[in-house]
Amino acid sequence: MPSYSPPTKDLQFILHEVLNAPAQDVPGYNELDADFTSAVLEEAGKIARDVLAPLNVVGDTEGCTLENGVVRTPKGFKQAFDQLREGGWTALDCDPEYGGQGLPYLVQTAVGEMLTASNMAFQMYPGLTHGAYSAIHAHGTAAQKAMYLPKMVTCDWTGTMNLTEPHCGTDLGLMRTKAEPQADGSYAITGQKIFISAGDHDLSDNVIHLVLAKIPGGPEGIKGVSLFIVPKILVNDDGSLGDRNGVSVGKIEEKMGIHGNSTCVMNYDGAKGWLLGTEHKGMRAMFTMMNEARIAVGLQGLGQAAVAYDNALAYAKDRLQGRAVTGTENPDGPADPLIVHPDIRRNLLDQKSFVEGARAFGLWGANLIDRAHRNDDPQAEGLISLLTPVIKGFLTDKGFDCTVAAQQVYGGHGYIEEWGMSQFARDARIAMIYEGANGVQALDLVGRKLAQDGGKHVMGFFDMVKGFCKENADDADLEDFVEPLKAASKDLQAAGMFFMQQGMKNPNAALAGSHDFMHLFGHVCLGLMWARMAKASQAALAAGTADRDFHETKLATGRYYMARQLPMTKTHLARIETGAAPVMGLAAENF
Amino acid sequence: MPSYSPPTKDLQFILHEVLNAPAQDVPGYNELDADFTSAVLEEAGKIARDVLAPLNVVGDTEGCTLENGVVRTPKGFKQAFDQLREGGWTALDCDPEYGGQGLPYLVQTAVGEMLTASNMAFQMYPGLTHGAYSAIHAHGTAAQKAMYLPKMVTCDWTGTMNLTEPHCGTDLGLMRTKAEPQADGSYAITGQKIFISAGDHDLSDNVIHLVLAKIPGGPEGIKGVSLFIVPKILVNDDGSLGDRNGVSVGKIEEKMGIHGNSTCVMNYDGAKGWLLGTEHKGMRAMFTMMNEARIAVGLQGLGQAAVAYDNALAYAKDRLQGRAVTGTENPDGPADPLIVHPDIRRNLLDQKSFVEGARAFGLWGANLIDRAHRNDDPQAEGLISLLTPVIKGFLTDKGFDCTVAAQQVYGGHGYIEEWGMSQFARDARIAMIYEGANGVQALDLVGRKLAQDGGKHVMGFFDMVKGFCKENADDADLEDFVEPLKAASKDLQAAGMFFMQQGMKNPNAALAGSHDFMHLFGHVCLGLMWARMAKASQAALAAGTADRDFHETKLATGRYYMARQLPMTKTHLARIETGAAPVMGLAAENF
Repeated sequence: MPSYSPPTKDLQFILHEVLNAPAQDVPGYNELDADFTSAVLEEAGKIARDVLAPLNVVGDTEGCTLENGVVRTPKGFKQAFDQLREGGWTALDCDPEYGGQGLPYLVQTAVGEMLTASNMAFQMYPGLTHGAYSAIHAHGTAAQKAMYLPKMVTCDWTGTMNLTEPHCGTDLGLMRTKAEPQADGSYAITGQKIFISAGDHDLSDNVIHLVLAKIPGGPEGIKGVSLFIVPKILVNDDGSLGDRNGVSVGKIEEKMGIHGNSTCVMNYDGAKGWLLGTEHKGMRAMFTMMNEARIAVGLQGLGQAAVAYDNALAYAKDRLQGRAVTGTENPDGPADPLIVHPDIRRNLLDQKSFVEGARAFGLWGANLIDRAHRNDDPQAEGLISLLTPVIKGFLTDKGFDCTVAAQQVYGGHGYIEEWGMSQFARDARIAMIYEGANGVQALDLVGRKLAQDGGKHVMGFFDMVKGFCKENADDADLEDFVEPLKAASKDLQAAGMFFMQQGMKNPNAALAGSHDFMHLFGHVCLGLMWARMAKASQAALAAGTADRDFHETKLATGRYYMARQLPMTKTHLARIETGAAPVMGLAAENF
Repeated sequence: MPSYSPPTKDLQFILHEVLNAPAQDVPGYNELDADFTSAVLEEAGKIARDVLAPLNVVGDTEGCTLENGVVRTPKGFKQAFDQLREGGWTALDCDPEYGGQGLPYLVQTAVGEMLTASNMAFQMYPGLTHGAYSAIHAHGTAAQKAMYLPKMVTCDWTGTMNLTEPHCGTDLGLMRTKAEPQADGSYAITGQKIFISAGDHDLSDNVIHLVLAKIPGGPEGIKGVSLFIVPKILVNDDGSLGDRNGVSVGKIEEKMGIHGNSTCVMNYDGAKGWLLGTEHKGMRAMFTMMNEARIAVGLQGLGQAAVAYDNALAYAKDRLQGRAVTGTENPDGPADPLIVHPDIRRNLLDQKSFVEGARAFGLWGANLIDRAHRNDDPQAEGLISLLTPVIKGFLTDKGFDCTVAAQQVYGGHGYIEEWGMSQFARDARIAMIYEGANGVQALDLVGRKLAQDGGKHVMGFFDMVKGFCKENADDADLEDFVEPLKAASKDLQAAGMFFMQQGMKNPNAALAGSHDFMHLFGHVCLGLMWARMAKASQAALAAGTADRDFHETKLATGRYYMARQLPMTKTHLARIETGAAPVMGLAAENF
């Protein structure tokens, strides 16, 4: 059975030595000294390793069941969920006014990586609750907040997001679910929603569904969509639970993975719902929390890659097979460990250099969200808005690839469920699809975010990269980082320029390259992260750190990324520069 | 539920217009006129589409069961297997002396793609039998051939290959299974073998296991391994079935996919076995059929990509979601079909251009095998020996990627088992692992095949590409193909040169780039295939073909590959040229 090793040291390194969080002028950050975060991360790591990780295979094997309308989660999930709730882990960054701990989103993100890495299907229950909490927190009336938030902060009540219907996923304008106004100010919700993660289960006393629906007579399409709070069990005015609402589980979907999470078809039959936010502005309310939700999904990609790598590494050190081509390295054993073989190392370093770079990228994103929200910093808001599709799309595409690569280290054992490596790949696969499929992320990036506010944010990004390169141009120790970063960033700029010039005449010229652009952007971001980490490690070594191994390994891993991953920007640019013709030339009927 | 459309037209195009098979001076090829192959391919396609494809999901859902020592295959498998046997489809290229039809391996390969695409788990039963048939045919005594081959040609008896043990897969020198000589000339085989595909089942009257084992007192390691014939049920001298042999199924493995195939742990407890070939030369006997087996696995990668693409394409034409950015294309519908969106087209063309190029590559490989075996052509033998790891490694890596890409077209539905797209990815995943994991293919290519016979075969390959480019240099219609092929081939040559120069000093410098080299080589091969197909299509158009759409689509698809896939060679070369340092620099304990 696979195991999980919490990356607490690496998280600390990024928080303190790379982002330099405690020194940042962000409310709450001054508390983030090494002792405090160390204590939080150590405790979260223990729960991830000792409580959630052992339930990962259980969740996959047992799955969730629906019997007589009642959904049961796999054995052990309820106890683990209670332990998480009771430890306050569901409330980390929630508003203290409603019982939250008010910690920065940065800490929530660091902890979140460990929880989702150790058991992705499990972590989706509190994760979706957090999303619903954020929507009510941002758009609810005072009464709604008072009624729902305290219970959602503690996960006594959990939450869901209901968007998709059988005939519409990305294109929500086609939605059919209706919300008919009632005399008491509530709405009667009728329709079917599918793919509802954590749709129903036995972990909480109530489930608060946030449901997108159309009020009859409203505007056509996406502009007539509103958001509603629809509790599974109606809540009395005194906060106690009342009658069952008209919402039921149609079935639990059989999926490729995340079997431990109950993905439900939800049927709303005149269920009582209350408008959240403004009539017909449901999409805006949803989008408020989209950045956070998408970053959280990006972290799922990273998390599964991280745990898969951990296990592949352990296997590569343990499994004896063949001899090193340059001479026996384990003369007392019948063979050398797998890790002596260059292609195994190549594979492991592909994973390791992605995981550590992506971890820094995710935490940087969380830092930007804190600055945007806690400091009302429009520059941070613009930048994270630009980077969000990159974090979601690149980290989940690449994260999935890493889980497949990790599986490969195991040879045939990687294909046998007993060893657990298949599950990491099967679970990670969904992250490329939900919360906006990665093609939609690429479209959002190229079609919307690039030109947002006159292109100010992408220009800001380029200036930041240029600034870093200029600042460190004379540092010989960073040459292996600065030069490749500069080249990759030039490729990204050239791609952006191509889109500007061509996209004016033909938007397809830009959209045909959107997938490649998202990946190109992702590589540049990871290149920037590695350059910053290298700088931090060089500084630590120069200051005589006691932990030379950690920092020298960091530099070696970073050099690998710069030398062997970053050149991918060339191919992405070459593809982008072929424009619309290769993609749009063929008539649909001739495919 | 997914469906399968047999690519008979495309197969015909490659056989007749690209490879020009009937005109080749290979025994049996003169019969391969359009009427004959059309009849064979149409019939095989019907079986694939109507008999095997509908059982694909059944196989995945039901899996195989072991009860009281008896393995049962999924419902319908037995009837389908009988239909395949009775139609003579298991005997296509087998020796007429033993009841085979003696058709070229080229035809077997074209048919094989359709059978494995429609139901990979099912096709492994006859597929492994064919492998065992080949080994006995090549190395058996006259008596062994007479006893086993006629029944194996008809699949009345099926076959297996037993190599792997719990502690050794790639490194078979560590093998523990023992073969103790008996007074009657047989051997008593004792040991445990794992991952035995089609290890036992209810489809045939007997299972003929080919088992690698060590004769006590023989040479150490891989040089002391011999191959044995170990029937599940002993065969009497008159050919009738006798007693059960001492071989039993320990368990059926729970796998990520190919659930319809019974992957068994096989226990040999003093089972009666007979030496196949020479004592201690078991690996050589195994390797005789390795080229064919590896090409067959390459075809599995292609096959799953092909069927996944078929379904993704149908979905992209059918599913209405969003509007084309350049203006509504389906004004009467609530939305446009997915295929109007550039990134969906990009995804589909990635798949289509791979599938059609890989199909040509696989058939070219089969053609080389025919020339090597039927014409005793050492040049063809050398070339296919060089290309085999590329066909296996590149087609299965990329084929799997395509199944994942096809799944993505479905959005959330791609993750739900009901839609069948997950199965294509889960099934395709094994092809990257078995029959020599792809890392081992890359090692075989760089460490052995490149330098084979003084590098003669790779030089021959380069000359062939150069020849094609030179011959067509002045053809303006082929410019889009010749120029990119030339550039890609130069990258491959540069990589080979780098290995020669660096590998002399440090073999790790070559092996660190082996994975990239295999992919670089694969791209050049597909580039060559596309250039040849383009030439054939240009010729057909010039000759006034009635099917202009087919050939114009072929050209558009090829141009896509040349413009958007082939530039990948640059990145592979850049990675290769970083040499050993990034990969070997980090000490194992610091990973």
